[in-house]
Amino acid sequence: MEKAVVLLSGGLDSTTALYLAKSEGYEVYAISFDYGQRHKKELQCAGNIAKKAGVKEHIIVKTNMDAWGGSALTDKNIDVPVGEEDRKEIPVTYVPARNMIFLSFAASYAEVVGAQHIFIGVSQVDYSGYVDCREEFIKSMENTINIGTVCAVEQGRKIKIHAPFMYMTKTVEIKLGNKLGVDYADTWTCYNGDEKPCGTCDSCLLRIKAFKDAGLEDPLQYANQ
Amino acid sequence: MEKAVVLLSGGLDSTTALYLAKSEGYEVYAISFDYGQRHKKELQCAGNIAKKAGVKEHIIVKTNMDAWGGSALTDKNIDVPVGEEDRKEIPVTYVPARNMIFLSFAASYAEVVGAQHIFIGVSQVDYSGYVDCREEFIKSMENTINIGTVCAVEQGRKIKIHAPFMYMTKTVEIKLGNKLGVDYADTWTCYNGDEKPCGTCDSCLLRIKAFKDAGLEDPLQYANQ
Repeated sequence: MEKAVVLLSGGLDSTTALYLAKSEGYEVYAISFDYGQRHKKELQCAGNIAKKAGVKEHIIVKTNMDAWGGSALTDKNIDVPVGEEDRKEIPVTYVPARNMIFLSFAASYAEVVGAQHIFIGVSQVDYSGYVDCREEFIKSMENTINIGTVCAVEQGRKIKIHAPFMYMTKTVEIKLGNKLGVDYADTWTCYNGDEKPCGTCDSCLLRIKAFKDAGLEDPLQYANQ
Repeated sequence: MEKAVVLLSGGLDSTTALYLAKSEGYEVYAISFDYGQRHKKELQCAGNIAKKAGVKEHIIVKTNMDAWGGSALTDKNIDVPVGEEDRKEIPVTYVPARNMIFLSFAASYAEVVGAQHIFIGVSQVDYSGYVDCREEFIKSMENTINIGTVCAVEQGRKIKIHAPFMYMTKTVEIKLGNKLGVDYADTWTCYNGDEKPCGTCDSCLLRIKAFKDAGLEDPLQYANQ
């Protein structure tokens, strides 16, 4: 059975990626990050999802990315914007080099457990100005991993990064996840960490629209409903 | 004044890199890692060195890379070898993807503070099987950083990784550091974290030999002397 490391935030995309990896026959090693984000809701969801999906192992990397701030997601002095952001500007929710850091950790973990596959739920389609969600970046990162790890350079075990939603709309992705048995009630998408998702931040709005367009019911209850 | 992020472990190489960056006129932002290494000696040294060198800022990234082990430097179940290792095999002191993780954090930090330079004290010359110390890796990482950060992609502020010791022997490096005013008494090289450096591990042996070849006195007192 081939092994795959899945980056699991506890959100919609990473959860769907996990179920996709399982459906393709991989033994899944999930990796989540406690990086000083504003709330722990997503992480709690990640724990539940990993358990329910029966992953082989689930590790949580703790790191203080809030030590240098620069993003509304880690810096409590910056407000998360309400409503859709101006797509011409870099969202304040951008965390500098986040996917590079996450994928580096995933590569380290993959090398240790002997996995040759990494799954990440990024997409270029619902692109919000996150340069590290583009295929060009993912390909370059994969190349760097295969130059910078012993398993790839000296043992012939190259690592492949799978980004199955790169060119998939969230609508199509949700339909796929639904078929694969994802329970989206377990996932958390809201930038804020209140009891219920706000339904007004950029992230909630994208999710609500995608469920609507997919003709499926979003099992979450929103605060503004 | 141009800004540079310097990866500062508290060892000989990174300390020399810091002094080199300063001598080249950069305003230095030092970044160190508390990653579950066996001892905190190096980190304490890093703090002293950063203070003495008068860096603009010094941040310590905390992360639990020991969560998945795989190296004698983070996994307390693996012994650090005594004496020179067989250079044909991967040293057990190899931490998978460590420099990739460190450089990703450095890139994030650089983006936030507006630095376009990252200094790292790796070398291909005193190569001990660490694939992520090779120029090929550093070049690929630099390329990935410039594809995966907003400052590079959208703001025209590309980041350059400086690895000034890539083709320099440790002997030449120590002579250079000596001229630049590095006080090597402040640095820690030993893999073990006892009161005095052991003088018998691979890392101590390389250092001792380099000082001898440079015709300089190593200010450290070794336990086995």
